[in-house]
Amino acid sequence: MPPSSPALVSVDWGTSAFRARLAAADGSALDAIEAEVGATGLASGAHEAFLEAQIGAWRRRFPDLPIVMSGMVGSRQGWVEAPYAPCPAGAAEIAAAMTPVPTTRIGRVFVVPGLSARDARGAPDVMRGEETQILGALAATGRADGLFVLPGTHSKWARVEAGRIVDFATFMTGEVFAALKDHTLLGRLMTPPDGSDAASAADAFARGLAASAALDRPGDLLHAIFMTRTLGLFHELPPHALADYLSGLLIGAEILAGAGGARAAIVVGSPALAARYRAAGEALGVALSPAADHCATLGQIALLKTLGAL
Amino acid sequence: MPPSSPALVSVDWGTSAFRARLAAADGSALDAIEAEVGATGLASGAHEAFLEAQIGAWRRRFPDLPIVMSGMVGSRQGWVEAPYAPCPAGAAEIAAAMTPVPTTRIGRVFVVPGLSARDARGAPDVMRGEETQILGALAATGRADGLFVLPGTHSKWARVEAGRIVDFATFMTGEVFAALKDHTLLGRLMTPPDGSDAASAADAFARGLAASAALDRPGDLLHAIFMTRTLGLFHELPPHALADYLSGLLIGAEILAGAGGARAAIVVGSPALAARYRAAGEALGVALSPAADHCATLGQIALLKTLGAL
Repeated sequence: MPPSSPALVSVDWGTSAFRARLAAADGSALDAIEAEVGATGLASGAHEAFLEAQIGAWRRRFPDLPIVMSGMVGSRQGWVEAPYAPCPAGAAEIAAAMTPVPTTRIGRVFVVPGLSARDARGAPDVMRGEETQILGALAATGRADGLFVLPGTHSKWARVEAGRIVDFATFMTGEVFAALKDHTLLGRLMTPPDGSDAASAADAFARGLAASAALDRPGDLLHAIFMTRTLGLFHELPPHALADYLSGLLIGAEILAGAGGARAAIVVGSPALAARYRAAGEALGVALSPAADHCATLGQIALLKTLGAL
Repeated sequence: MPPSSPALVSVDWGTSAFRARLAAADGSALDAIEAEVGATGLASGAHEAFLEAQIGAWRRRFPDLPIVMSGMVGSRQGWVEAPYAPCPAGAAEIAAAMTPVPTTRIGRVFVVPGLSARDARGAPDVMRGEETQILGALAATGRADGLFVLPGTHSKWARVEAGRIVDFATFMTGEVFAALKDHTLLGRLMTPPDGSDAASAADAFARGLAASAALDRPGDLLHAIFMTRTLGLFHELPPHALADYLSGLLIGAEILAGAGGARAAIVVGSPALAARYRAAGEALGVALSPAADHCATLGQIALLKTLGAL
C-alpha cells in the first residue's frame, strides 16, 4: 500500500506540552512533533510564530491542510479564547462553536471550544481538550453512549448519551496528589520509588485502594491521607512505597465517586496512566476499558467532517 | 487578694512556636513568653540553651518549679523523644509515660508523651500536644466523657470516656487548605481577603459549607474543591472570597466526618479558629461548645497532680 496522504495538522496544545501530528484521515500519523512548551506560558502574540516554527516544513509541503487545535490553547490564557459551549454537546454543537484563528502566515487554523456543565446544585464545571478526545473515543469505539474517564492532573468523568456529552465532573486527583506529596508533611518520609521493589509499591497502591473503598463520609478523605505519614512512622510501609499508598487512596476515591455506582467506563489517556486506572478499577469493581490511541486527532477529524471540511 | 504564687513553668512547644507561661496552680499566668521558634527546627543539643535563655529569669526567682513541656518537642525531631502512649489513655497512663529530660542547668523538666490509636481497620494515628489540651479541657469543664475537636493544621477529633481518650482521628484540613491555595491552580484566581466586604466572605464560607453537606461519595471532595476555580471563572464568587469557599468546604467536610453523626462536641483552640468552627458547626447541625483558654497548662497541671508533683 502507498503511504496515506495527510488530511490535517492535528495540534493538542495544553498547559505544559505542545503535540502536533501530520495526520491522515484515519488518524494515523505521517509525522509528529512534541515540545514542552505550554500554550498558557507564551506571551500574547507569540503563538503564531511558535506554531509556524514547529510545523512550517509540513505547511510548505502541504499548504492547504486545515490545522485544528484543541486544549488550553483556546483558553483566555492561551492564544485565542474559544468560549465554552454548554452541555449537552456533541460533534454538531462543538463544531459550530469552533473558532477560526486569524493568522497571517499559516492559513486556516481552527480552535476547538471547551465545554461547560452545571451539576445538580448549579455549580459550574469546565473542560478544554477532553471534549475532543471523547469525540475521538466515540468514533474509535463506534459508541454513542457511555461513561468516559480521562485521568490526569484534572481527571474528567463524562456521561455521553446519543453522541452528546450530557454532563461531566472534574476531579483534581493528579494535582492534589502532587501538592500533598511536594508541599505537605506527607512527603517528608517519602523516598523515590525503588525500582527493585515493585511488590512493595503494588502492595501500597492496593492498600490505598482498599482504604478508599472503606471511607465512610467525604471528610474522611482528609483523615485517610494522614495515614501516608503514620504508616511510614510505624514502619508499616517502606518510605519508597508511601507515594503509592497516597496515589491508590486518591485514585480509588476518584473512581468510586466518578463512576457513581456504574460498573464500567471507557478510559482515555496515556497508556501508563490508563493502565494504572484500569488496575485500580479492577480492584474496586469498575471495569475500565481502553478506547484508542490518539483520540484527540480522531475527535478533530470528526469535527472537520461535521464542518464538511474533510 | 495577693497575687498567686507560681506552681509550674508550662511550655507548649510545637513545630512553629514556643509558648511558655509562669503559671499558678489554677492555670492563670503570672508571666508569659512567646517566640516563633519551633521545637523541630533547632539543631540537636540546642534546645536546653534556648529554653534556658527564654525562662532563665523565672528559674532564678523560682528555682524549684517543675517545668512541663508538651507538643512536638517530645517527637523524634524535637528535643527528647517521648514515645507515644497507646489509647485508651487518661491522666494516669499519660503521666506514667512522661519522660524526664536530663538537663545540666535547668532542673526538673518533664516531656508529655503523645498518643497513638488504631482505627477499625488497624491504621495508626498519632497526636502530640493535643492529649494535654484535652486533659485540660476535661479539668476545666468537669467532664469525663465527650467528643473533642482541636482544629488546626492537623485537626484532631477525640472521643473521651470515663476520663480516658479512647480513640481519635486526624484531619489534615488546615494543611490541605494551605497546599491547595498556595500550590495548585485553585489559588490563581484568588486575591487577598477584602476587609471591606465581609458579607461576600461569609457568603462564600456558607456556600462551601453547603457544598460539603451535599457531597455524596468521599471522592466527590476531589471534585468540589475544583469549584473554587469555576465559581471564580464564572464570576459567581469574587476573587477575594474564593479562599473562604474552599475553607468552608474543607472545614464542613471535616466537621461532618469528625462528628460522625454526633450533634455536639467541645472545641479547644485559639479563639479565632474556634469561632470559625463554631459558625460552621452551627450551619451543619453540630453544636461546638468552647472549653477554656490555656487548656495545655490546665492539662499539665492535671498531670503533675497525678504524679504527686503538685
